[in-house]
Amino acid sequence: MSIIPEIRGPRDPFLLRRGVADIIVEHELIERLESGEQLRLKQGFDPTRPDLTLGHAVGLRKLRQFQALGHRVILIVGDWTAQIGDPSGRSEGRTMLTAEEVHANAQTYLEQFFRVVDRELTDVVFQSEWFGRFGLADVLQLTARFTVAQMLEREDFAQRMERHNPIGVVELLYPLLQAYDSVAIRADVEFGGTDQRFNILTGRELQRMVGQRPQQAFLVKILVGLDGHQKMSKSLGNYIALTTPPYDMYGKIMSLPDAAMADYFECLTNVPDAELAEMLGAIARGEVNPMLVKKRLAREIVSVFYDEAAAATAEEEWTRVFQRREPPTEEPVCAIPSSVERMPAVDLLVHCKLAASKSDARRVIQQGGFSVNGLRVSDPKAEIELREGTRLQVGALRRCRITRS
Amino acid sequence: MSIIPEIRGPRDPFLLRRGVADIIVEHELIERLESGEQLRLKQGFDPTRPDLTLGHAVGLRKLRQFQALGHRVILIVGDWTAQIGDPSGRSEGRTMLTAEEVHANAQTYLEQFFRVVDRELTDVVFQSEWFGRFGLADVLQLTARFTVAQMLEREDFAQRMERHNPIGVVELLYPLLQAYDSVAIRADVEFGGTDQRFNILTGRELQRMVGQRPQQAFLVKILVGLDGHQKMSKSLGNYIALTTPPYDMYGKIMSLPDAAMADYFECLTNVPDAELAEMLGAIARGEVNPMLVKKRLAREIVSVFYDEAAAATAEEEWTRVFQRREPPTEEPVCAIPSSVERMPAVDLLVHCKLAASKSDARRVIQQGGFSVNGLRVSDPKAEIELREGTRLQVGALRRCRITRS
Repeated sequence: MSIIPEIRGPRDPFLLRRGVADIIVEHELIERLESGEQLRLKQGFDPTRPDLTLGHAVGLRKLRQFQALGHRVILIVGDWTAQIGDPSGRSEGRTMLTAEEVHANAQTYLEQFFRVVDRELTDVVFQSEWFGRFGLADVLQLTARFTVAQMLEREDFAQRMERHNPIGVVELLYPLLQAYDSVAIRADVEFGGTDQRFNILTGRELQRMVGQRPQQAFLVKILVGLDGHQKMSKSLGNYIALTTPPYDMYGKIMSLPDAAMADYFECLTNVPDAELAEMLGAIARGEVNPMLVKKRLAREIVSVFYDEAAAATAEEEWTRVFQRREPPTEEPVCAIPSSVERMPAVDLLVHCKLAASKSDARRVIQQGGFSVNGLRVSDPKAEIELREGTRLQVGALRRCRITRS
Repeated sequence: MSIIPEIRGPRDPFLLRRGVADIIVEHELIERLESGEQLRLKQGFDPTRPDLTLGHAVGLRKLRQFQALGHRVILIVGDWTAQIGDPSGRSEGRTMLTAEEVHANAQTYLEQFFRVVDRELTDVVFQSEWFGRFGLADVLQLTARFTVAQMLEREDFAQRMERHNPIGVVELLYPLLQAYDSVAIRADVEFGGTDQRFNILTGRELQRMVGQRPQQAFLVKILVGLDGHQKMSKSLGNYIALTTPPYDMYGKIMSLPDAAMADYFECLTNVPDAELAEMLGAIARGEVNPMLVKKRLAREIVSVFYDEAAAATAEEEWTRVFQRREPPTEEPVCAIPSSVERMPAVDLLVHCKLAASKSDARRVIQQGGFSVNGLRVSDPKAEIELREGTRLQVGALRRCRITRS
């Protein structure tokens, strides 16, 4: 299966509706799409958080759909705005990144980005191309165009003002710099989640002020995380990384609450609307076991980001382990010298490569994700007795069997 | 008489009290003054309004008093902040000045400034020395140090927010740039009117943040204008320019309301406190005609900004014209061809050089400032009969006698 379905033209409902929250202004966008002109699709990226999740993939798949019609993605690496950090919903005190950190993050990001977006139809540009030589005079001109009240209309700013939470003066500059990006690259359409509405419209406004044709805002839905309620995000820990291997991705999707299935189908799969409506209807009427539908969802998503073979293998393995309760295929083993009788849980996870670090191990244990022979161990300092064949499991996906040597 | 009286040392009450509204922090300032160190006295100047008035002179005389103790004035030409314009109490939409306008204004300003301040103990610096190479990174660092709420505490911002009058984002930068000036020149004391309290304290704060010894704020009283109520200001038209010639300066001071005399004595003359208290007490007890005291005031002020001889001449002339009702000395004449029998008031004023332009003439007539042979004419279109010897007068100071030719 392809990363996106076939797009049949500018008015294809899959393009304009699936996973889409709002288009401002839709009829203008359609006119542009039908004009035959190659559009410049703006996508910003804040290199403070290089790891992409399936939440980001919703927008990236949209970019890919537009590319299918021949349009060009301009990916802006926000090496300047990253130094501020998009203030949305966070408290004061974020430290600014160094230029080196920003560039390293950008490389990591790009590798993931091009898993979804077509590299051939993408230009990668850094904000430093224009902000590197942005002087005080430019700042004064830019900031003279907007009022404090306009900025404070942004929902998160308004809330923070009301709650007397501090807003740095620098944070007011964030939307303005992002807006200026649109001018710098002469964007035709800017993409973002609904939480980007204000910033994107500010760009539209600024373009109009400087005499450019104002960009369209293409706002995609925000995907909920594994908890089924909050926005999928790295910082909340409720995410599936874009680089998650097929079997792990499959398993994580199977852990989703049933209520989240519809959104995931809509935003991440190519399953046609009609078929989708039918499946969801069948669940609602109790005619089908939701787990079967969820397996379909997991298979579809793995197919999109990998391929159908990978999806089939993942499903087979998951079914064996979690439905038929059989031991996993090729169960990994971890050798421990016979002289060692016990080991603190934290050290054990690191030794057996079930955790990347002690702190990683500690967290997963405290979150209840570690079990020994099927029994949960939630104290990171617990001394684990080591016997031949002891089964360790971390989350749904990482496991091993101990052998003595 | 000198521009300032003799200053007897760091604790001289004339230095620390006369015309002073507030010193923050007074004991720190005295310590610095007594340390023997040469202090760097910061005075900013916004070259949008090059004309200095007696209102500005209050602060300039303070600078001169500090110079008398050997301290050094650093005059900052705000060629960058002028491009924003101090937003205090004005509505949106001020157009930014060009660099050329700023520099021309600065020259005009300096000529006036050095009428009061000692040129030898003054360094003139332009903000462009540091803001010319101020990049976006500097702006981000600076603006990250202050919150929007802190800025909106400034009284005029708070009022405008409350009244829903727009505040440009750029205006929030004004106090920050002015604060940065203090860092750039390592100011020890910043001088300003009480309306500069916020900006000066922001400078103090920023210096502390970057590890500099925080400057002291030396706040002088704000002088009322000729109306006796509002701040003396060019834009309100209630001002006496620093360059006003002696006789005109004398006359304008004589037009002050009695109630304003005490402030003018305090802020602009060297009359000792005790003598001042005595005079004002005598007025209050009805023991002296206030006009006599006002003549003393006018004489003192002209003596400060010119000299005693100029003051005496001005007083003599004013007394002749306004008390003895005699014709002014060397009354100027204006020749008008005999063939012209009448002329509209507006044209007449322009022709006789009593007004700079028709619009100037129209305004002064409408304001009741024009009289013909002692009778007010307030209709700019009035046809004035022209006879040999007809006396025209505009305000207290401009007059002429008509001759036919």
